[in-house]
Order: sequence, then C-alpha cells, then structure tokens
Amino acid sequence: MNDLFLRACRREPVERPPVWMMRQAGRYLPEYRAVRERADFLTMVGTPELAVEVTLQPVDLLGVDAAIIFSDILVIPQAMGMALSVDEGIGPRFHQPLRTPADFERVRDPSPTEDLGYVLDALRLARRELAGRVPLIGFAGAPWTLMSYMIEGQGSKSFMHAKRLLVQDPGRAHALLARLARAVGAFLVAQVEAGAQAVQLFDSWATALGPRDFREFALPYLAEAVRIARGTGVPVIAFAPGAGWALEEIAAATGADVMGIDWQTDAADARRRLADRPLALQGNLDPCWLYAPPAVIRKRTHEMLAAFGGQGHIANLGHGINPDVPVANARSFVDAVKEWRAP
Amino acid sequence: MNDLFLRACRREPVERPPVWMMRQAGRYLPEYRAVRERADFLTMVGTPELAVEVTLQPVDLLGVDAAIIFSDILVIPQAMGMALSVDEGIGPRFHQPLRTPADFERVRDPSPTEDLGYVLDALRLARRELAGRVPLIGFAGAPWTLMSYMIEGQGSKSFMHAKRLLVQDPGRAHALLARLARAVGAFLVAQVEAGAQAVQLFDSWATALGPRDFREFALPYLAEAVRIARGTGVPVIAFAPGAGWALEEIAAATGADVMGIDWQTDAADARRRLADRPLALQGNLDPCWLYAPPAVIRKRTHEMLAAFGGQGHIANLGHGINPDVPVANARSFVDAVKEWRAP
Repeated sequence: MNDLFLRACRREPVERPPVWMMRQAGRYLPEYRAVRERADFLTMVGTPELAVEVTLQPVDLLGVDAAIIFSDILVIPQAMGMALSVDEGIGPRFHQPLRTPADFERVRDPSPTEDLGYVLDALRLARRELAGRVPLIGFAGAPWTLMSYMIEGQGSKSFMHAKRLLVQDPGRAHALLARLARAVGAFLVAQVEAGAQAVQLFDSWATALGPRDFREFALPYLAEAVRIARGTGVPVIAFAPGAGWALEEIAAATGADVMGIDWQTDAADARRRLADRPLALQGNLDPCWLYAPPAVIRKRTHEMLAAFGGQGHIANLGHGINPDVPVANARSFVDAVKEWRAP
Repeated sequence: MNDLFLRACRREPVERPPVWMMRQAGRYLPEYRAVRERADFLTMVGTPELAVEVTLQPVDLLGVDAAIIFSDILVIPQAMGMALSVDEGIGPRFHQPLRTPADFERVRDPSPTEDLGYVLDALRLARRELAGRVPLIGFAGAPWTLMSYMIEGQGSKSFMHAKRLLVQDPGRAHALLARLARAVGAFLVAQVEAGAQAVQLFDSWATALGPRDFREFALPYLAEAVRIARGTGVPVIAFAPGAGWALEEIAAATGADVMGIDWQTDAADARRRLADRPLALQGNLDPCWLYAPPAVIRKRTHEMLAAFGGQGHIANLGHGINPDVPVANARSFVDAVKEWRAP
C-alpha cells in the first residue's frame, strides 16, 4: 500500500515526495485515446466502467502515486439542469448560458446521490479496482469558476459576461455563489463517502478576477466549500491558478490542508510565503517544460523538488498536462521525482 | 498646452493625475466604428489620415490627457516579411507562423523608415493636428510578445508552440529575440524622431511565462528595447500584463520611467513594492468595471486614485478598454479622474 500521497498531504515524514499529474488521465496517453474512440467525452464521464478504466491508466502505465477520478468540473452545473456538450476542438459548452434573471431562476439545487450518482459509482468502483495500490482523489470546481462558466457558456479570454454581472447585479451573483458553495461542499462529502481519500477544489477561473473581486466573489465561497469538505476528515487541496498573489489569503481563509501552486509562481517563493502555515504544497512544474528533452525535464524537476524542500510537498505540474506531450516525457517527469532524494 | 501626462511621467508635481485609456481609439466609439466601416483594420493602420482621425477621437470626444497613435504591435513582424491579416471576430493572424528553422531564416531585419514609414507619417500628422493640445504616445510590442505571436500565428491560451521552442531550441529563440530587441528599439527611436513624446512597450504575452522563462526570454530583451528607447530622452513606459509578481525585477532590469500596472495587481500593493524606485506608475482600473453604473465607476476610480496617491501616477485602465463598453461609462471614468483631488 503506497500512502506517500496521503502522508505528504498531512505533512508526515516521507522518503520522497509523491507525484501525480493534473489531467493525468488524458489524451497524451494512447490508451486513453483508444477508449475515447469508442465513446465521447461525456459518455466516458457518465459511464463508471469507462471512467475507472482511464482513471487507472496513469497508475498502471506511469506509476503515479495517486489516482484522480476521471470526471469534469462541469458535472455540477449539468446536475443543476444546464444542458452541456463537449465537442472536439471546441471544448465544453452550455447551450443556454445564464444571462437573464429568469435564467438564474431555472437553476435547481442538485442532489449528489440522485443527480451525480454516476460519479459516486465511479469512485466506488475505482477504489475497488485500485485495491489499495495508491490513494484515490475526488474533485470539484469551486463556486466562482462554476458560476462564471455557467454565465459565459464556454471558455473565455475576457470573462466579460460573468464579470459584468459582478458590477451590475452583485446580489444575484452572491445568491448563486452561495448555492454553489453548498452544492460543491455536499458533492465533495458524498465523494468521500463513496471512497475518495482526498479531494481537490479547482478555482480554475480565479485568473479572471482582480484582488478586490477575488476577495468578494471567489474566496469566501471557495472557503465555504473547503470548510464543508474538511468535515469529512480527508485532506482538502485548494488550487486557484492565476491567483498566486493570494496564496496567503487563500491559506488563511480556507484552512485547506494542501495548497496547489501554479506554474506561474516561483516555487521557492511560495514555500517561503507559506512557511508558517500548517499546510502542504502541491505543484508546480510548467507543463510546457514536458516538451523538453528528458535530461532537461529531469534537471528542472529536481530543481523544483529542491525548491519545495522534500517534505510536505506533492510533486505535480502547475496546470494540467498538455494533450500532445509524448508519454516518454511524462514518464521522465514521474521517474525524476521518484529518483530524487532531499539533500 | 496640457502637459499633465508628461509631468506625471517625470514625477513632477501635478494638480491631478492625467488620464488616458489603453485602446482608447477603439470600437466602443461610434465615431471609430464609422471609420472602420469605410476601411478594414490594417488599412486604417496603414493609412496615416485614417490612423490620425481615430487617434484624435478620444481626445476630442472624451477629453483624455494623452493621445496614443493608432497602430498595432504586429507591424514589426509584418515589416520583417510575415504576411498578416486581421479578420473580424478572429483577430490578427500570421499565415505562415514560424515553426521550422527555415521559417526563422526567412525573417528579415526591418528598417523603420523604409518598412514602417506609414507609422512615422501618422505620428508626424498626429502631432500637427494635435497642435499641442495633449502629448502623443508611440508604442511597440516587446520582443517576447512579438516572437511568441510570430510562432503561434494567432492568439493562444497555452502558447504551446512558442514555449516548446524555449525548451527545445533556446539558442534559436535567443537569436530572434536579440534581433527583435534591436528592431523594436530602432522603431521606438524613429517614432520619437517623428514626434512621439513618450513611448510604451507592451509585453502583452508576459502572462505566458513562469518566473524562470520570463527572466531568461522576456526581461532581458524588454530591458534592451527600453534602454535603446531611453536614449531619446522621452519617458518610456513598460507594461507586462500578467507579470505583476515581477514589478520590482522589471523596474530594476529595464530602468523604465513608468511602470504599467495590470488590473490583476492591487494598486496599493504595487505602489508599496515600487516606493523606493525612481519611476511613475500607470493603471489600473479593471476594464470590466466600466460595465458598472456610473456611480460605481466613479467610486472605484476614486479608490484607485487614492491607492496610487495622486503624484507620479497616470490614471488608466489595467488593460485595453472592451469594445462593448458604453461611451458614457468610459466618460464616467475620465470625468471621475478629472474631478478627483488627492486628500
């Protein structure tokens, strides 16, 4: 039983840092693409057997120290009644994004067991098939990220529609964010009950908000979701890419057990800034560095590990792995972590 | 003669901060759209009379304290031989992005007077037509931003192609960056000779780089371009949106007279971090706040001005103005700056 990941989350002594990669069950793996040829993305997410098959692939193929359930952050908005499609090359899209007050009223509060049972089934099956080899991570999108996606309807560079709401009708934004925080929290609790041994909150669109808006519309609801999830006793990871300036505030407001560090943030700087906090750090190799020759990947990975210091650190990328990274390069990263020892 | 802007750049005493807006000659103005109906974007950029017409619009219509020549950062790559098109809703696109070593060899060094004379003509005409009403700003893209655009060929979220080069063939990247730094510097000098009274360097894609890559591939070349431009004696503004973590390093490495602050950065924090540097600050209202009701725009603008402190500050947005902002709201911002006085 490899429990390196859970020990590092709790800042217990480890022989070496554990390693996994965000989006490790993904298109860079030929074995993933083979499954993907038989089923579209949402079918894979919605079919526990398929979701578990790809969840286990990086454990079997690369030897990562944790599995993360194959799913999507947008399953919650979908469970709230929003029609979702994911098309190749376009990405996820809500067909009727929230724009008018009536749109907001149509959204209903989801039940984890009734509306998201397929994720819970996948977690149960994954735990069984993992049979203790490595811990299993559950996850959810954070309230701001979910709400802004529900409003934009698709990926955005300016987040114009969502940010317009924040200044034109902040009350309506707060009302939906509060509902989302409860839904996200309840979903994470249900995931732990179904077998998740740690959970990660992704506030992927934190990058859209300046400090004032982040403090008003993202942080309190991220904190509320973390608070609910921490009631289960499993480690909770908070990751707000693009908000590296806010690490101290996120740590203080959320009480998360682990802080995800994005690749834009200097690792040594993050460690220094959070040194007096009772939390572990996760990250943060630039995913684009996996295009480098193996010797360079190895060197930069070792430098990153040294910057984090070896204890209370979970090695990861600072963002999801790119789909066109050669498997050999992903393996170089994992192997580089495994061979490293703190000086 | 309104020289508030130039005085603020030099940190001389001002009665109130000057104000202008990045992309102030833009689609949010009906008068701009009227010109745009008669000519496409690149024709406007390439025709001094049209470029000057829209350059002057925000001075006449909104009463901003500086004009910035209407142009595009991609005129330099275009002058280096890269075919460029700008299509409505798609944005700028290079038809043959740099991917192979042969692509890089095709790029030629531009002559400001021969290849970019239309920009210089526009500056001369604009100075004449402004007749001293407000100062005229010239600008250019910074080397990293230009190179990454030349490699990607169009807007990107991951900057995968450009960043791949940095780890796979850093030598080739450095060679092109050095050429770009000289080209950008020479172009800025020519702009000043043609009448620009200040120049701004946009390192718009700084956001694509983590600290290590920024220090190796962006900062030295931004600094070299600033150094060349400062030889003219006019104020040089450096703006690297998305690299708010690096303000101190940019100030130290470039010696810029003015540091642009993006909307993601807390104004009071930027001021504190740069307090001991001999430079002025420019920014940084979140452009999305211009969707707010006028009373909210006014309040947030006044808070922003107070955070910067009133002296050595040029009021601006923290990014270009969005095309769908009502003109009345843009005017609320400008008026709010003009009525404010430091307590």
